[in-house]
Parts: sequence; C-alpha cells; structure tokens
Amino acid sequence: MINGSDPILLTPGPLTTTPATRQAMLRDWGSWDAAFNQMTDSICRDLLSIVSGQKDFVCVPMQGSGTFSVEAALGSLVPRDAVVLVPNNGAYCTRLLKILERLGIAAIELKLRDDEPAGVARIEEMFLREPRITHVAQVHLETSAGLLNPLDEIAASCARFDKRLIVDAMSSFGALPIDVSKGGIDAVVSASGKCLEGVPGMGFVIVRRSVLEASEGVSRSLALDLYDQYAYMQKTTQWRFTPPTHVVAALRAALDQYKAEGGQAARGARYQRNCAALIEGMAALGFRPFLDASVQAPVIVTFHAPRDPAYDFKRFYEAVRDAGYVLYPGKLTEVETFRVGCIGAIDANEMLNAVAAISRALGMLHVRLAA
Amino acid sequence: MINGSDPILLTPGPLTTTPATRQAMLRDWGSWDAAFNQMTDSICRDLLSIVSGQKDFVCVPMQGSGTFSVEAALGSLVPRDAVVLVPNNGAYCTRLLKILERLGIAAIELKLRDDEPAGVARIEEMFLREPRITHVAQVHLETSAGLLNPLDEIAASCARFDKRLIVDAMSSFGALPIDVSKGGIDAVVSASGKCLEGVPGMGFVIVRRSVLEASEGVSRSLALDLYDQYAYMQKTTQWRFTPPTHVVAALRAALDQYKAEGGQAARGARYQRNCAALIEGMAALGFRPFLDASVQAPVIVTFHAPRDPAYDFKRFYEAVRDAGYVLYPGKLTEVETFRVGCIGAIDANEMLNAVAAISRALGMLHVRLAA
Repeated sequence: MINGSDPILLTPGPLTTTPATRQAMLRDWGSWDAAFNQMTDSICRDLLSIVSGQKDFVCVPMQGSGTFSVEAALGSLVPRDAVVLVPNNGAYCTRLLKILERLGIAAIELKLRDDEPAGVARIEEMFLREPRITHVAQVHLETSAGLLNPLDEIAASCARFDKRLIVDAMSSFGALPIDVSKGGIDAVVSASGKCLEGVPGMGFVIVRRSVLEASEGVSRSLALDLYDQYAYMQKTTQWRFTPPTHVVAALRAALDQYKAEGGQAARGARYQRNCAALIEGMAALGFRPFLDASVQAPVIVTFHAPRDPAYDFKRFYEAVRDAGYVLYPGKLTEVETFRVGCIGAIDANEMLNAVAAISRALGMLHVRLAA
Repeated sequence: MINGSDPILLTPGPLTTTPATRQAMLRDWGSWDAAFNQMTDSICRDLLSIVSGQKDFVCVPMQGSGTFSVEAALGSLVPRDAVVLVPNNGAYCTRLLKILERLGIAAIELKLRDDEPAGVARIEEMFLREPRITHVAQVHLETSAGLLNPLDEIAASCARFDKRLIVDAMSSFGALPIDVSKGGIDAVVSASGKCLEGVPGMGFVIVRRSVLEASEGVSRSLALDLYDQYAYMQKTTQWRFTPPTHVVAALRAALDQYKAEGGQAARGARYQRNCAALIEGMAALGFRPFLDASVQAPVIVTFHAPRDPAYDFKRFYEAVRDAGYVLYPGKLTEVETFRVGCIGAIDANEMLNAVAAISRALGMLHVRLAA
C-alpha cells in the first residue's frame, strides 16, 4: 500500500480522477430505485450529445471493462455472415480481430505499421479488392502507440462504399471530436474510465437505433447482448443485470465536471496542452516521441527508451512512481519504448512535474540519454 | 436525488455497505502497479479460503456483474457436447438455461415449484433417466423466493454419479457454508456486491485447477474467457483487461471487515438473526412468508402481498423508501409478493426499524392485512 499522497496516474485509464468523482461513490444506490435509473438515463443522454447522436442514435451502457462493450457491439451488431475489415496498427486493432475470430465472424486484416494511420486510400483499395467486405471495425485512437486514425475520412468513405462502420473510440471519446450525425458510423464504443475521467467498471455503445433494433437475436452471449440490454432498459428503465452502481454514480459526477469544464472542446484543449508540455519537456531531457507529430493524439505519448544499458524499465518505473507519477510500459513489439499518458484530472503543470520526476529518476539510476 | 441520510437497502445486492468499504474507493489505483495486483491476489486467496479451496482450486476474478461470471464459467468450463441438467426453482435457474441456450449447449430442465428445493431424489431420477447428462448447473440460493437448495447433498450425488457440478452461489457465498474440499464441485460463482458486502462491479469463479487448465480454447467469447483471464494473470499478475480498480479496493476493505467479524460463521449468524427478527416482526403485522421455514435461507424473505385492494406495490415501496428502507419487488409469476433482504451492513435492530416503517406505510396507505 502507498501511504500519504497517492501517485498521479499517467496511464490511459484507470487514470487520476477528481476527489468529487470519487466522493460520488460514498453513497449506496438501489438498482431498482427511480433516482438511480434516472441517473443512468441522464448519463446516456449526455453521452449521446457528446457525439451529436441525439436524433438517430441510442446509448446502451454495459457492465465490465471497455473490451466487454467492444465485444458486445461486434457480437450483437455484426451478422454471422458479415465480412469485417480491420485496419490494424496496434494491439487494440489486433484485439478486434481476436474478438471476431472467437465470434466466428470472417475478418480481413489490413496490416499497417505501428506508426502508420489507417489511410482512406489503403482502405478503399481493400474495398475494391474484396467486395465481400460488409463492415469496418476501426480503432479511433490506437493506444499502443498513441496514434490517431482519420475517423471522419474513414466514415465518409464507408458511407460512399456502403460499408457499416463500428468504431472503438475507447481512449478518444470525450476528448477528440466525433460526430455521428454526419453519417457513415453505425456504432461508437467507449468506457467510463478514459477521457470522461470516471472510474473504470462500465462501457457503453452509442448505436444507430435502426441498426440496434435489427439486431434482436444476433448475440450468442446473454451477458453481452446489446439488444437485450437496450430492450430491457426501455421496458423497465433498469439495467438488465446488477449495475456497478458506484461506478455509475462516479460517471454522473465526472460528466457534470466535463460539462462545467466546457465539454469536448475544452477537454480536448486541456489534453492538447498537457501533451505539448510533456513532449517539450521530454525533448529537453533528450527523449524522442515514437510518432510523428502529425499523427500523435493528445492522449498518450510513446517515447523511445534510453539506449544506455543502465536503463531498465522496471527500475525506472519504480523510481518515477516513488516520485509521485505512474508511467505505462510500451506496447510495441519491435522497439523498446515506454508511454506517458496526458489524460485524467491533471494539467500542464502536472506534466512538467512529471518530466522533472523522470529527470531525477534518470539521474538516480545513472541512465544517460544518447546525444 | 435523495438528500440527507441515504435509505438502507433491503435488497439482495446492491446492498448497504459500510462507510469503510465505500471510503476505500477514495483512491485511484494504477492497474499495472504491483500494489494493486497484490491486492487482487490477496482477495483471490481470501475468497478461496472461504470455501476451503486452497488446495485444488483457483480463484478467477471477472469484470462485470455476477451474471457475467456465471456465463464465463458455463462458456469456458462446459464443453459444447456436454448435456447440462438444470434443476429449476426460480428466475436465476431460468437464467442459467438461457445462457446455455445462447452458448449452444444442450440443457435438460428439471422443473420444480418456486417453493420446492432441488431434492437429490429428483436429481438422481434424472441421472438415471437421462444418462447423457454430463453436468449439473445448480443455483445454491434461488433469490427469486429466497429458497435454499441442499448443495452438500447435490455435490455428494454428483460425485457418486460422476457428473460435473457448477454452482451459482451468487447470494449465498460468504454467508452460508460451502466446502469445495469435500468433492463433487467443479466451480462456484459469486460476486463482490452480495454477502461479502462489497460494491457491485465484479464477479469471480472458484474453479478446480485441473478443470480450468483443461478449458483452454473452449470459450467462444474473448471477454468472458475464464481460462485466458487466469493464464494472463498467472503470467503477468495483472487483470487481462482494465479492472474495476475502485470496486476491487472496496472488496479488499469488505473482506478485511468480513474476517474481523469472524468469517462465514459470524456473517451467516448475523444474517440469521436479521432474518428471524424480520420474520417475527412481519408476522406480528400479519405478513406470511411465502416459503416454509425449513427451506428459507437467511438472505431474502418473500412475503405475500396484502390482499386489500388498497395495496399497490409501487406506492407501498415509495412510502417505505421515504421512511428510510428500500424493499425489493417480488419475482414470482403466480403469486403477488414482495421481498425484503436481510443482508448487507445491517443488524437485527435495523430489521425491526424496517418492520416499523412498513407498519407506518400500511397505515398511511390505509392498507389492511387479512386477519
């Protein structure tokens, strides 16, 4: 157990939340009670409006981590005879492929490098080469490297080619602009504990009403059946199975603060300032980001690890944590890296403090950066 | 929103937790950090010891509600060509049948009345009549009516007949004795927010190590793959996907209090006192429990609703809630009932206060009980 002040989590979720968000968990809620179910409903309405989905979309909350909601979306909205294109530039894209494989749904992988965004030219080439493609499953922000994929262009292309698009927006929702009213998107998936700055424990799917309503009986899972979850909630106002009541209450509090901050534009701008402060500070220490600035999303930054043989991630991680900041390991297979998140209830000043802590840790461990 | 004091939840989970349990959620935890993963490990060890599973069993925690863990157990541990007997005396048994149907696993229902425990004679009759039965999926405490099924006898019978037994112990685990070391049980499923008095948001499966190790590749779900969850945790000490960190911390705190109270015997005895006080107090008002005392578990009590036409559950519920106690609706199809839980961080005195609140609500609504 860590005593005294808790470290700041510079990780892509769980992340550092505000005291107000955590204090919302100090009450117990009955899952049958009207006040609780009104809270769920108000959360769903807020989530819909963040992506301009009020008109043709509905929000279905789901228990579990974000991956549970991703599997619920794929397993409920994609028919068994579909063929899904998955542009793959990282571990979360690979996870989509794994889920589709388990579900017995045919998938076609468009293999990309870790630093290469899913360009529309490459995607449309696949559409032409493989006309049996019916769906695209696209990660918006690939957290493996922190890479931003061009969602608007991909959605427009899917609309033109009449492909159904399901977006894993786990670590972008709320911070980066997503507008489902422009067309081309069937569903967007995210979770409570990412850029909305709630605590982890539930996900949600923003899904086109007509697509959801056509999905009755598709899911081979009961727990992860999005249609059932929605239909039950419509009928009773309640969650189908026991909701994570305290996590829901924390998300309500987090959304209140999100709106007070100024919504997506303000949240995105703060993260952008955090990211810029981080990259600038790290550059002064001699650290290079793995990604080109043009594709770097302001959520998590991958840095090349020091080449000095004195560097060991575990010791570095522990030294920085003891100085108050929790880093994140790299997730790339071919290059040694580590990651620093710039999301959560933190500001640019906190990022500079983190850079200072990293600098001290390097000194303590006698690690030098190459000139 | 309810202002001032929160009502006491007399429901089978979410339930009323202690301030200490909720305060454990005031900290943020990194899911990669050693301290957090040690916490998960200590929870698993405590859960194993509650059912004497230290020797041959392992504990696999799972994100989501308890039903997610039930589906994970059935979907991961039961081969596709199995035939599962489900003795059915309520809604949670019916849910097991639904899950098996979704998973494409053959099931045989042994239909029982809502007030009729799953007797070994009836079960063995099915074993003899249907030798293709390979598994039994048994709800220990059927929360629909509050009925206790004779788990020890069923386990012994499964051992004798060489059937694999999976137990849904959602609302009994921690309060009623379960001893997996006696043989006959392959897996026991429960969740954080029931008799352990944590908050809802995660479940767990206590499973025989040899059975789990033979289950690689069985699950058709990635999120609900018990084997993968276990193997990843063994390799990395971490949860496979983002854990509900605050829910985990609350469960750690709840287990500390559970042990301090005296473990299962003490927890079960307190609930027994609560249940006795409730039934006695309600009897004095003229309420009759639906179940015979011999099969009534000390967790939730179903009462016949008043026959007076002035009675309306919704108004009754609201009046009692305004007096500080949240009741639970009945879940029986053929008889009008309501339910009162006797679990959570409450004692017999609280039950008497609840009975007094029920009495006042009846008076206020001019509802009379038949003599």
